[in-house]
Amino acid sequence: METTPKKEIDDRIRKLQGKLKEKEIDVALITQNVDLFYFTGSCQKGHLVVPAEGEACYLVSKSLERAKRETPLSRVEYQQSFRQLPAMVHEIAGAAKKLGMELDVLPTALYFRYREAFAGSELVDISPQIRELRMFKSPYEIEIMKKGAEISHKMLRSVPQFLKAGKREIEFAADLEHLVRTLGHQGAVRMRQYNQEAFYGHLMSGANITFSTFFDGPTGGPGLSPAFPQGPGWKEIQKGDIVLVDYVIVYNGYCIDCTRVFCLGTPSRTLLKAHEDALLIHEEVIKAAKPGTPCSQLADLAFKMAKEMGYEENFMGYGSEKARFVGHGVGLELDELPVLTAKQHYPLAEGMVFALEPKILFKDTAIAGVENTVFFNGSNLEKITLYPEEIISI
Amino acid sequence: METTPKKEIDDRIRKLQGKLKEKEIDVALITQNVDLFYFTGSCQKGHLVVPAEGEACYLVSKSLERAKRETPLSRVEYQQSFRQLPAMVHEIAGAAKKLGMELDVLPTALYFRYREAFAGSELVDISPQIRELRMFKSPYEIEIMKKGAEISHKMLRSVPQFLKAGKREIEFAADLEHLVRTLGHQGAVRMRQYNQEAFYGHLMSGANITFSTFFDGPTGGPGLSPAFPQGPGWKEIQKGDIVLVDYVIVYNGYCIDCTRVFCLGTPSRTLLKAHEDALLIHEEVIKAAKPGTPCSQLADLAFKMAKEMGYEENFMGYGSEKARFVGHGVGLELDELPVLTAKQHYPLAEGMVFALEPKILFKDTAIAGVENTVFFNGSNLEKITLYPEEIISI
Repeated sequence: METTPKKEIDDRIRKLQGKLKEKEIDVALITQNVDLFYFTGSCQKGHLVVPAEGEACYLVSKSLERAKRETPLSRVEYQQSFRQLPAMVHEIAGAAKKLGMELDVLPTALYFRYREAFAGSELVDISPQIRELRMFKSPYEIEIMKKGAEISHKMLRSVPQFLKAGKREIEFAADLEHLVRTLGHQGAVRMRQYNQEAFYGHLMSGANITFSTFFDGPTGGPGLSPAFPQGPGWKEIQKGDIVLVDYVIVYNGYCIDCTRVFCLGTPSRTLLKAHEDALLIHEEVIKAAKPGTPCSQLADLAFKMAKEMGYEENFMGYGSEKARFVGHGVGLELDELPVLTAKQHYPLAEGMVFALEPKILFKDTAIAGVENTVFFNGSNLEKITLYPEEIISI
Repeated sequence: METTPKKEIDDRIRKLQGKLKEKEIDVALITQNVDLFYFTGSCQKGHLVVPAEGEACYLVSKSLERAKRETPLSRVEYQQSFRQLPAMVHEIAGAAKKLGMELDVLPTALYFRYREAFAGSELVDISPQIRELRMFKSPYEIEIMKKGAEISHKMLRSVPQFLKAGKREIEFAADLEHLVRTLGHQGAVRMRQYNQEAFYGHLMSGANITFSTFFDGPTGGPGLSPAFPQGPGWKEIQKGDIVLVDYVIVYNGYCIDCTRVFCLGTPSRTLLKAHEDALLIHEEVIKAAKPGTPCSQLADLAFKMAKEMGYEENFMGYGSEKARFVGHGVGLELDELPVLTAKQHYPLAEGMVFALEPKILFKDTAIAGVENTVFFNGSNLEKITLYPEEIISI
């Protein structure tokens, strides 16, 4: 099994230590699976203790043996119980006045437990710093994402083989899921935000495409029941239907997000025009992306173009349920930084990766647009997902 | 799409109000998707406000229209922003001295936000009360779980068709996943505990069966990479291999957990004996289960029997990585109450549902045992999963 190279892990920890010093935080105590994987190359149960200076130590309760095999860190120790933790952290990092934790994901009841255990320290949130570090992908990470994009490509290429009138959405979904699993999709799509969930993504046809739900994105979908209210439903795909395939691939932990639109027949002129317009927005955003361009500027450009083109009402969704962004960072989680929204001003810089998804909805009928995972190579945005972008008639 | 009957929802809310009164909590503010679904029949984005007395109100920001269609609650209102929330809660429930929230899942950073917004109230944890309510399934819920069990049954029956030497674990897994999706598996398997994750479950062969990981259970599995370190891996299934199929089915939100063991050839005598012994433990636990029997007593019985049979070392895992339980509640989440462990004394009562999974591991080779989802019908434990329990040779 591929493990993360030592250089990657060392770089990431060094950068985290830089952030800690900047914020005058004495030690970081990393607990969340995804962050543990990012900083250790393993996500076994335990804590990664990162002092602002000195060597990091991975304390593992289960499975120690596996963690040792997976991480290139040289300091990995057994943590038998929660009670031991304060003394172990003290031994590694000394007396900590400020202790950083991922308070955006750590449940409150656990926070109380840590606060009591570290009564002499102030617990502060280091999730903004971690999320900002993770916003920039290394060449190593980009290579993994390119492998994920190959799986996405093969999946999209297989659509004509599986997509038939008379099949239910869930049956068509199951066909694609089967294929991508055999190609190495890890299955689980992780999201960081509370209550956001995903299972592969959104695959819907006809009226179901604009079936709305809680999900923070332009589409939702009925799902199979109100208990998991998104994605494919029981609907039979009909001749003439537009079919949305917005399925996330996760390879070696990294998400690739790509959307294409299919049609069981010939799409209407209105839809073809909207699709052309969405592609134009997509290309203009890419052209406008220069080193240092604020993400907000790209979002403003997209929403402004859509409005001028006459899609103010239906660009990125409808009314109060509209998504307020035209792109979102992807990586180990599906909802990473940067978000391409009016309120987020991160300047474009090398290594940023996001899904750019200008989408135009047509209530109860269809959708136009694409989604590509793109990365900023230092001078411009490059597409990682390269499947043809036109609406594909089947 | 099936929606939850009004009587169910009314009963659940009435019982929650009973708990609130008992704890002198003025109002519950429910936020988590799964709990929202349980108490409203919908899990759209927002808050369910349950005053200790009076009518509950579901405040929804997205999608209001969908929430109204799905919930039988008569009071559903639009919540435009977080800022509006305190006034809306005040209007529904009056001045609240104590306000209950699900602090076991609510992230700390959000907790701070609520604490500030409800500065006049004390925020207390009502997750123990909610988890205890959800421990008891109604006949309506049991019926849904029985439908899930039928899908599980069909999946196990299909194993001989898909399980072949030379196939990779992930390929065999993809075959079963394809089948169960077309039968209505919602996909997502939810877990409540921080950092616990599942994707279908554990399906491994030969040496991979005892591949350990962070997961709180007797098995783990390699997964496809250290980024999601559990379940099927890339290993080719070999002639003679023991194959574990521990795949969760989720139908209309409810988990069914069932494990069976297969063999590509003839299992060893040692394994057959261990399997017989595990089945005996399973049957003795079922026999010992009477109204009021503490769950701890069932756990003690299982571990005691295993020890006497000579499996002290390898029952429910090895050494420090052993699972400390022999069963766990299942429902809308995979890790519900009751847990059959030495420390949990809930007395058996009508409606309790759990997965009973006595398992004996053989390092780097095999596993014996079964897992059934069972429910306490008021006088004894009844199996919901009914697939034949012997090791099936293929």
